[in-house]
Amino acid sequence: MKPVRIGLLGCGTVGGGVLQLLRAKGEQVVQSVGAPIEVTSVLVRDADKTRVPELDRSRLTTDPEAVLGDASIDVFVEVMGGFDPARAFVERAIDSKRSVVTANKMLLAMHGPSLIDRAIANGVDLAFEGSVGGGIPVIRVLREALASDSVVRLEGIVNGTCNYVLTRMRAEGLGFDAAVREAQAKGYAEADPGLDVDGHDAAHKLVVLAMLAFGGSVESGSVPTEGIRGIDPIDHRFAQRFGFVIKHLAIGRERGEAVELRVHPALVHQEAPLANVNGVMNAIAIEGTALGATVLSGRGAGDLPTAVSVVADVLDVARARRSGVSGLATRGIKTRARALAPMDDLKGRYYLRFQVHDRPGVLARLAGALGDAGVSIEQMVQEGAGGASPVELVMLTHEATERDVQRALGVIARSEVAAAAPRMIRIQE
Amino acid sequence: MKPVRIGLLGCGTVGGGVLQLLRAKGEQVVQSVGAPIEVTSVLVRDADKTRVPELDRSRLTTDPEAVLGDASIDVFVEVMGGFDPARAFVERAIDSKRSVVTANKMLLAMHGPSLIDRAIANGVDLAFEGSVGGGIPVIRVLREALASDSVVRLEGIVNGTCNYVLTRMRAEGLGFDAAVREAQAKGYAEADPGLDVDGHDAAHKLVVLAMLAFGGSVESGSVPTEGIRGIDPIDHRFAQRFGFVIKHLAIGRERGEAVELRVHPALVHQEAPLANVNGVMNAIAIEGTALGATVLSGRGAGDLPTAVSVVADVLDVARARRSGVSGLATRGIKTRARALAPMDDLKGRYYLRFQVHDRPGVLARLAGALGDAGVSIEQMVQEGAGGASPVELVMLTHEATERDVQRALGVIARSEVAAAAPRMIRIQE
Repeated sequence: MKPVRIGLLGCGTVGGGVLQLLRAKGEQVVQSVGAPIEVTSVLVRDADKTRVPELDRSRLTTDPEAVLGDASIDVFVEVMGGFDPARAFVERAIDSKRSVVTANKMLLAMHGPSLIDRAIANGVDLAFEGSVGGGIPVIRVLREALASDSVVRLEGIVNGTCNYVLTRMRAEGLGFDAAVREAQAKGYAEADPGLDVDGHDAAHKLVVLAMLAFGGSVESGSVPTEGIRGIDPIDHRFAQRFGFVIKHLAIGRERGEAVELRVHPALVHQEAPLANVNGVMNAIAIEGTALGATVLSGRGAGDLPTAVSVVADVLDVARARRSGVSGLATRGIKTRARALAPMDDLKGRYYLRFQVHDRPGVLARLAGALGDAGVSIEQMVQEGAGGASPVELVMLTHEATERDVQRALGVIARSEVAAAAPRMIRIQE
Repeated sequence: MKPVRIGLLGCGTVGGGVLQLLRAKGEQVVQSVGAPIEVTSVLVRDADKTRVPELDRSRLTTDPEAVLGDASIDVFVEVMGGFDPARAFVERAIDSKRSVVTANKMLLAMHGPSLIDRAIANGVDLAFEGSVGGGIPVIRVLREALASDSVVRLEGIVNGTCNYVLTRMRAEGLGFDAAVREAQAKGYAEADPGLDVDGHDAAHKLVVLAMLAFGGSVESGSVPTEGIRGIDPIDHRFAQRFGFVIKHLAIGRERGEAVELRVHPALVHQEAPLANVNGVMNAIAIEGTALGATVLSGRGAGDLPTAVSVVADVLDVARARRSGVSGLATRGIKTRARALAPMDDLKGRYYLRFQVHDRPGVLARLAGALGDAGVSIEQMVQEGAGGASPVELVMLTHEATERDVQRALGVIARSEVAAAAPRMIRIQE
């Protein structure tokens, strides 16, 4: 049996996991693909670094040419991450008519549509299950299981760092910085946590999911994105009081003419499926016209879960290549550019927290500014009444548009009653 | 473009949904398969019955021969359900080298392994996503996404009727009969609800899932199966008091030498993912060695969700057929017979409820019988003390074996302290 030959680009934790799974499941692989899979060469930056014992070190090279120029390789597996040189490597592999499996969400978010078009033009596969949701097979479900349905909405907890930090803030009353330090100590956050806690990682993943769910591409830089730095332990307390939990969500909706994508913290009802997804777990809720709501949850990151997704793609692509077919992983994906719905038009309910000086007439001023903008208040609660220090005043609005809420908040922020910038968190119904 | 020709066997709610989706998504289908899909003939029992408007009535026939004998058909879609004549039809289709998509869980549970072997021998596909979990793509996830992992455990709420009945009993304090009547009125339960509420439907689905998850087949009649008829509103109350929710579960575990499969009501912690799956929703938790725990949830039944799964299979099978490959849906499935782990060896914690006459020494008698069998008590609570009527006494045990618990319950049931048969519900950790 002629093996399917793999060139592994990168051998960090995910790459090591891929080698471990392929070794451990050799027999299963042969049964599934109809041939063994052979990792022919492994491209790394540092040939001397310690790697998993499953790596045959004679296959290691630091010379990209030795791997990318090897015409005997059938499938390239890109698990180096980052942007450069991953993009050039993937493009070269596709141009030389080889299929590619990648777990690189940043590359996909930035250049997914052009890479997919390139793969289709070259008659090869580009599979990327590992790029979103670690081991949660959400790409496969959107691509295959929902092939005959129309996705109208998706909502996900797709960044484990944010979810861990918010979970610990809520459970232990930790401040944001303390929760981040804890996440770093446990290996759940990077030394520079910005890509995660500022929401950019979630935005990348949302763009990849939206391409499959709604058909079409948007620039990931143009997705309205907020992180979780502004969330205070007090917000968790107030949210709980109103029956909500604060989660960091990636949200997408089909709006017909445009697609609505946004990433931000949100109040979700404590009984909603996503409210009970805690710690580093991820979950993605998908609503299809025919299917109704489906929720997929699991470990959204980690070497082995992501490796399971990468290997599932490798098996699919290897099988397709042996059968002489291709385009399995890219079929039906629409890459046309799509307009983003303007955030200003968003309609919903809002959680507003004001730190104000406790003087007569303050509430009238706040209510007046909101009322002038057409925002009406559904509930209000005040904490820490009396004394010289500012008090916290929290309101939940009735449905309002983002434009009106922002206008009212602007007026309030500029007024002398505000002791600090107002805090706004959207309520996700 | 030569269309892929479909013979539809049955045109009830699922069959109608298939026709609707294929019609609504015609363009998407062509893009996905590379050819249009044409429903050539539709076999029904009653040609005069009202059907979905998407059905071209000129394709209707009541003559099996007109469909099964039509050599131009590429793929048969069996959505008639039941056992006879579905089995013979599916076998004949496979023997005549045509691929089959079926949503028939009973057929799969009873004859899955032999049908799969038959499909492999004939070089055709047999796909059955629609047979378990409605629109939840659990078969696809087990078959593809976990291809390189080892599933060690699965736990599911796979019967919507049971889940609806238990949910209503808990939320409203309804008795079993009243909850079943409500389910019937809403179309969630059959006139004869036995197949659902006695657990047989869940056992069928478990056998299908286990074949994929653990590799191998067991007789569905030999799976230890309990329904929910014995659950009383009082059990929901006590469960809640201890922090649990009662759910009807299908449970599978890889035990190495044998596979452990069982279907019964169970107490699950109120914070566990399955505890919050309510009404007719289904959910399946899968634990893989590499992947960790993944939960898939959604609408487990209904015409359109199931049709989405059936159409996803049709697209896969049609595509494979056009490419001249097959075995996609059956690859790697092991059909060897596997031994079931004996229920007696099960270890776990137990919820025990005794209705006893409130006399001095009763507790000592109960504790004595349990202690003699090696079962120790972790918590105890009594309700309705004093008076002439019997009282309810509930105990949670420490870990014990099923054998020992059953032995103790036998002794207690035969003793004069028991005013009614003891009730036992397993605790699922």
